[in-house]
Amino acid sequence: MSRRDAAALVRTARVRQGLTWAAIAQALDAPLVRTTAALLGQHPMSAEQAETACALLGLEDAVAEALQQQPARSIDPELLQDPTIYRFSEALAVYGPALKELIHEEFGDGIMSAINFKVDIARRAHPDGDRVVVTFDGKFLDYRW
Amino acid sequence: MSRRDAAALVRTARVRQGLTWAAIAQALDAPLVRTTAALLGQHPMSAEQAETACALLGLEDAVAEALQQQPARSIDPELLQDPTIYRFSEALAVYGPALKELIHEEFGDGIMSAINFKVDIARRAHPDGDRVVVTFDGKFLDYRW
Amino acid sequence: MSRRDAAALVRTARVRQGLTWAAIAQALDAPLVRTTAALLGQHPMSAEQAETACALLGLEDAVAEALQQQPARSIDPELLQDPTIYRFSEALAVYGPALKELIHEEFGDGIMSAINFKVDIARRAHPDGDRVVVTFDGKFLDYRW
Amino acid sequence: MSRRDAAALVRTARVRQGLTWAAIAQALDAPLVRTTAALLGQHPMSAEQAETACALLGLEDAVAEALQQQPARSIDPELLQDPTIYRFSEALAVYGPALKELIHEEFGDGIMSAINFKVDIARRAHPDGDRVVVTFDGKFLDYRW
Amino acid sequence: MSRRDAAALVRTARVRQGLTWAAIAQALDAPLVRTTAALLGQHPMSAEQAETACALLGLEDAVAEALQQQPARSIDPELLQDPTIYRFSEALAVYGPALKELIHEEFGDGIMSAINFKVDIARRAHPDGDRVVVTFDGKFLDYRW
Amino acid sequence: MSRRDAAALVRTARVRQGLTWAAIAQALDAPLVRTTAALLGQHPMSAEQAETACALLGLEDAVAEALQQQPARSIDPELLQDPTIYRFSEALAVYGPALKELIHEEFGDGIMSAINFKVDIARRAHPDGDRVVVTFDGKFLDYRW
Amino acid sequence: MSRRDAAALVRTARVRQGLTWAAIAQALDAPLVRTTAALLGQHPMSAEQAETACALLGLEDAVAEALQQQPARSIDPELLQDPTIYRFSEALAVYGPALKELIHEEFGDGIMSAINFKVDIARRAHPDGDRVVVTFDGKFLDYRW
Amino acid sequence: MSRRDAAALVRTARVRQGLTWAAIAQALDAPLVRTTAALLGQHPMSAEQAETACALLGLEDAVAEALQQQPARSIDPELLQDPTIYRFSEALAVYGPALKELIHEEFGDGIMSAINFKVDIARRAHPDGDRVVVTFDGKFLDYRW
Amino acid sequence: MSRRDAAALVRTARVRQGLTWAAIAQALDAPLVRTTAALLGQHPMSAEQAETACALLGLEDAVAEALQQQPARSIDPELLQDPTIYRFSEALAVYGPALKELIHEEFGDGIMSAINFKVDIARRAHPDGDRVVVTFDGKFLDYRW
Amino acid sequence: MSRRDAAALVRTARVRQGLTWAAIAQALDAPLVRTTAALLGQHPMSAEQAETACALLGLEDAVAEALQQQPARSIDPELLQDPTIYRFSEALAVYGPALKELIHEEFGDGIMSAINFKVDIARRAHPDGDRVVVTFDGKFLDYRW
Repeated sequence: MSRRDAAALVRTARVRQGLTWAAIAQALDAPLVRTTAALLGQHPMSAEQAETACALLGLEDAVAEALQQQPARSIDPELLQDPTIYRFSEALAVYGPALKELIHEEFGDGIMSAINFKVDIARRAHPDGDRVVVTFDGKFLDYRW
Repeated sequence: MSRRDAAALVRTARVRQGLTWAAIAQALDAPLVRTTAALLGQHPMSAEQAETACALLGLEDAVAEALQQQPARSIDPELLQDPTIYRFSEALAVYGPALKELIHEEFGDGIMSAINFKVDIARRAHPDGDRVVVTFDGKFLDYRW
Repeated sequence: MSRRDAAALVRTARVRQGLTWAAIAQALDAPLVRTTAALLGQHPMSAEQAETACALLGLEDAVAEALQQQPARSIDPELLQDPTIYRFSEALAVYGPALKELIHEEFGDGIMSAINFKVDIARRAHPDGDRVVVTFDGKFLDYRW
Repeated sequence: MSRRDAAALVRTARVRQGLTWAAIAQALDAPLVRTTAALLGQHPMSAEQAETACALLGLEDAVAEALQQQPARSIDPELLQDPTIYRFSEALAVYGPALKELIHEEFGDGIMSAINFKVDIARRAHPDGDRVVVTFDGKFLDYRW
Repeated sequence: MSRRDAAALVRTARVRQGLTWAAIAQALDAPLVRTTAALLGQHPMSAEQAETACALLGLEDAVAEALQQQPARSIDPELLQDPTIYRFSEALAVYGPALKELIHEEFGDGIMSAINFKVDIARRAHPDGDRVVVTFDGKFLDYRW
Repeated sequence: MSRRDAAALVRTARVRQGLTWAAIAQALDAPLVRTTAALLGQHPMSAEQAETACALLGLEDAVAEALQQQPARSIDPELLQDPTIYRFSEALAVYGPALKELIHEEFGDGIMSAINFKVDIARRAHPDGDRVVVTFDGKFLDYRW
Repeated sequence: MSRRDAAALVRTARVRQGLTWAAIAQALDAPLVRTTAALLGQHPMSAEQAETACALLGLEDAVAEALQQQPARSIDPELLQDPTIYRFSEALAVYGPALKELIHEEFGDGIMSAINFKVDIARRAHPDGDRVVVTFDGKFLDYRW
Repeated sequence: MSRRDAAALVRTARVRQGLTWAAIAQALDAPLVRTTAALLGQHPMSAEQAETACALLGLEDAVAEALQQQPARSIDPELLQDPTIYRFSEALAVYGPALKELIHEEFGDGIMSAINFKVDIARRAHPDGDRVVVTFDGKFLDYRW
Repeated sequence: MSRRDAAALVRTARVRQGLTWAAIAQALDAPLVRTTAALLGQHPMSAEQAETACALLGLEDAVAEALQQQPARSIDPELLQDPTIYRFSEALAVYGPALKELIHEEFGDGIMSAINFKVDIARRAHPDGDRVVVTFDGKFLDYRW
Repeated sequence: MSRRDAAALVRTARVRQGLTWAAIAQALDAPLVRTTAALLGQHPMSAEQAETACALLGLEDAVAEALQQQPARSIDPELLQDPTIYRFSEALAVYGPALKELIHEEFGDGIMSAINFKVDIARRAHPDGDRVVVTFDGKFLDYRW
């Protein structure tokens, strides 16, 4: 079973079992965004985590096995059209060059790592309508020969 | 003068004057990322802001005029190859589908606005090497007919 | 069952049952374009709506379940070649820059929301041949930090 | 002088003269969206219209001459990234297949003409924030051998 | 059954039955190119035509049903590489701009309709080798607001 | 001077001189579509033709020289978006596969040459609106080893 | 059975039977490259050739039937990445413009036909390592109206 | 001066001087296709060759200097549309997979080098019309670890 | 069985058997990177190697047969997005032009062969974190006519 | 002056001065590949290095200033067609998936950094022809939340 097939089974099972991603992450005692990404096929899980998740979701062993495989990470180009995901691309188009300038100003020539990296998402109450707050937090890596 | 030409003049003048983006933003009493993005051509500036910025940077009136124009916002595809900017695209490819799931779980069917939206960047000290922390903060908009 | 598969079953069943989209929308007491888009896989339906629609169309429960899933919204690039859909792209190529100028003139720097948004379609009688009238109606969102 | 160069001069001159597109359209006694599109290079103008417009805008005869040329109509792909224009593409991706179904249901096999066609834009007041209302109005053309 | 699957069955059945496209068109008393295009999935057929064609070709009812569906019209990009089809694209690349000039010169600003349109193909004997003669015949549509 | 620059000068000069393409073709005693294509840079002209054309159009010797160069034939992809040219591409997408079938049925395995080839355009009066009639006439070439 | 499926069966059967392409071509008394291309799906075969080939390869009638179909000729873009095929594309990129100049110098304005055309491949012994010699031999076609 | 600019000057000068590529190659005592490719910017020339060629063509020293630079080899994608060049791409699409099979059959797993490589072009008289004969001759390189 | 299907079976079997790629390469007495690439479908294996590998992996004869086929070499574009692979593309974008300059400086006009070529990977201990060391080692081939 | 313009001046000056890249790197006491890449615009130089390099090359201060700017790193897609650079892409297509497997086997889930990274190039004598040896040496970064 490929990781993509496993991810499709996870998505369907989660809805059928009436579980939230947050509940699964809590059961695994693991970070929310990372766990969700792993179950969608973007990170390998440990045997223990994969088995716990499959037990919760009522999924067979083959899924647990697939979730432990080393993935090839990529995104289906059609998904980049989805408005919820597209808004991040748009924000990057508008603010990416500014973020580059400010990273260089503050840290020097280098990048924010996307490997030594975590993402968090939170809800922030606001009188004009609540807000989605997404935090990208990556180690600075300087160009070093 | 096009906004792109104005942005090129701003970048060169900033280095020549030995000014930081932070110092310019402070002089304009405006948010750091937004000001940087505006000076790079992604937001129109008020006449007052544009003139103050050009005075600081030693740039002529034509630049101030260009900075007030309504921009067409886009990113040069070649810039998306730059490693400092690319890491954000990569993070979006890896975590975008998870963020979509979690936005829907927490808020329902909808998006994080990229218009009623702000970005911030900070340095977080860490014993293993300091970290770049970028926060995207946008109003949740639900699909509403 | 994926939403795309569900949509294919809906399309075939609709023709077999001799139902119009308008009749289905009326039965659901829901807007015409939104209901059609939802049945084609672009919006999640409530359990009640999905079950009513499937009862009308003589479709099984798995379809109703699929219609309630959160979709990833996108369009197959091949469909953009279809002449009936292409004419909208062409109109956007010809008039999009003008609409951008006029939105900025009337409302300031911002966009017409595609989320807080509705579309309507009507027939307008005309001596030279009846006309298709499509109305896009979205909340103005100003760039607001 | 190419039509694209003429359009750039028109845009700059309009801001410098403090004229709205609406005022120019009114002076030409011509529809608002069509006039704006023509001045941006998408429709040929009559000699009289071109000269009136150039007189208002303080532009030389070469611009008026260019505005009368038969254009090749297209849109710069980078402009399709601009959020104000992109939202129309997104709405078309989400609702295009539904509009196609409904055009066929109401009119039969055919298209909404993009040539015998007009567009209008209006502001609709709304307590939750005013709305942009764009109307596409094209003659139905049935596939006819 | 999709129209594409129906078209594949039609192609195979036609060869097996030893029928020409011309014979099928004659049996349906319908234009040759239009009938061929319809059987290849590009136009909906009437119930009567679809049933007559399927009777001739020895195909089941499901094919006749599929042939009556409203198609989404497009061409597989790989087919555009086929030399017999490619030569038309090449001719359009070489002569398209000239045809545009001459349509505008003769008719004014507008297009040849591809909807109110017919195509014919004929063989013209010639001492140096017979010639393929393809005629595109579409109603002129002027840009009319 | 490149052929593309020469073509731009020809287009402007033709309008300024108030000449039709038909008049130029007649003065050169050459076919209308071929002459127009040649002046737009798609065929080399003989020295005599180039000089006659430049004399008519009031253009300098360098243009006549450029018109005699061997061209590299291609079309700017942006021009393929122009509605007047696009309709030909659309007709090819809809009818190309049918034309391929019918060429093979009538002539065998081969192509319509785009080199031993001519195009003509005519106006056909019609009570519902006059029609553009474009004829592609190319020698059949069979695959011959 | 599609021609592509037939080609896959041919490739496997050829290896299993321990036959060379040369042996098959010889058995059919047909040119080597043409026969190989036909069996890979790029040329229709006569009934006799198809049956002889299938008898040799131990393949069923359905394959012989498929080999007689009129193909749509194209190449899978992924195959163009294969180094053995890519080197031809690279040689064309480096020498194509020179070949164009020299064809025009020797023959005038026109092309080497790819239809009235044959290809041959040979091994040429050489002390530094044997060489692959591929000959393209096509009729010159001049642009002729 | 870039090699591309030098190539444009060479092309114009060659026509003005009434020289053939063959005459230039003969004067340099160098192979025809290689010399033409070098003058079009695809191979560096020796100082002696570059100076001789520029003397023949009446071009200044800066051109001779440019012709000696190490080039980056590539082809402008628009040139690949030119029919004279396109026919080679088409032949490669039709016969490339067969050539790959036959290279492997005759030589084993490997490629025809495009570096240790030469191309020749010749005219072959034929009663049905003369033929263009292009020979690709490259050293076989086997995959060798 | 295609080579791609064989590769998928190899990957799964390797994990199930708890074998490392290094252990398989050692058992075959063959270079590590080459063996891994071959098992992933990029090089044909000898019958003996294929059978040994399948015996180790517990795979059926059909896999061994597939591993001996001549492959068409290419990479799935989605894999190029995978961060572990992408970093090599990024390094090539940053350092490729420099490597080209230095190859020409040291060896003259030519290339590093990718056919007479080997790759090695090693771990290099380092106090700041161990390093991946990848060595590309290819025969220099000079452009030789 | 942009970095790209500075790079062009560096390339020309280096040839005119008869300097090797190695000599420049030695004069700057800096690594060879890194120095070459920096002078081609891919890394910022220190003021001292930039000035030393410009003095050697006989270039003006504006170039030295440009060489100190923070670059946006990318590669012109046309350069990726150059055979000397393309061979690296080809090797990555053939061996990239194997390198990914082996990095994961040896180091776990993660990447070879392209930032904390160095490249070296060397000539290795070999009786069959000397070899280009390129070493990529990057710190392993494990996916770490």
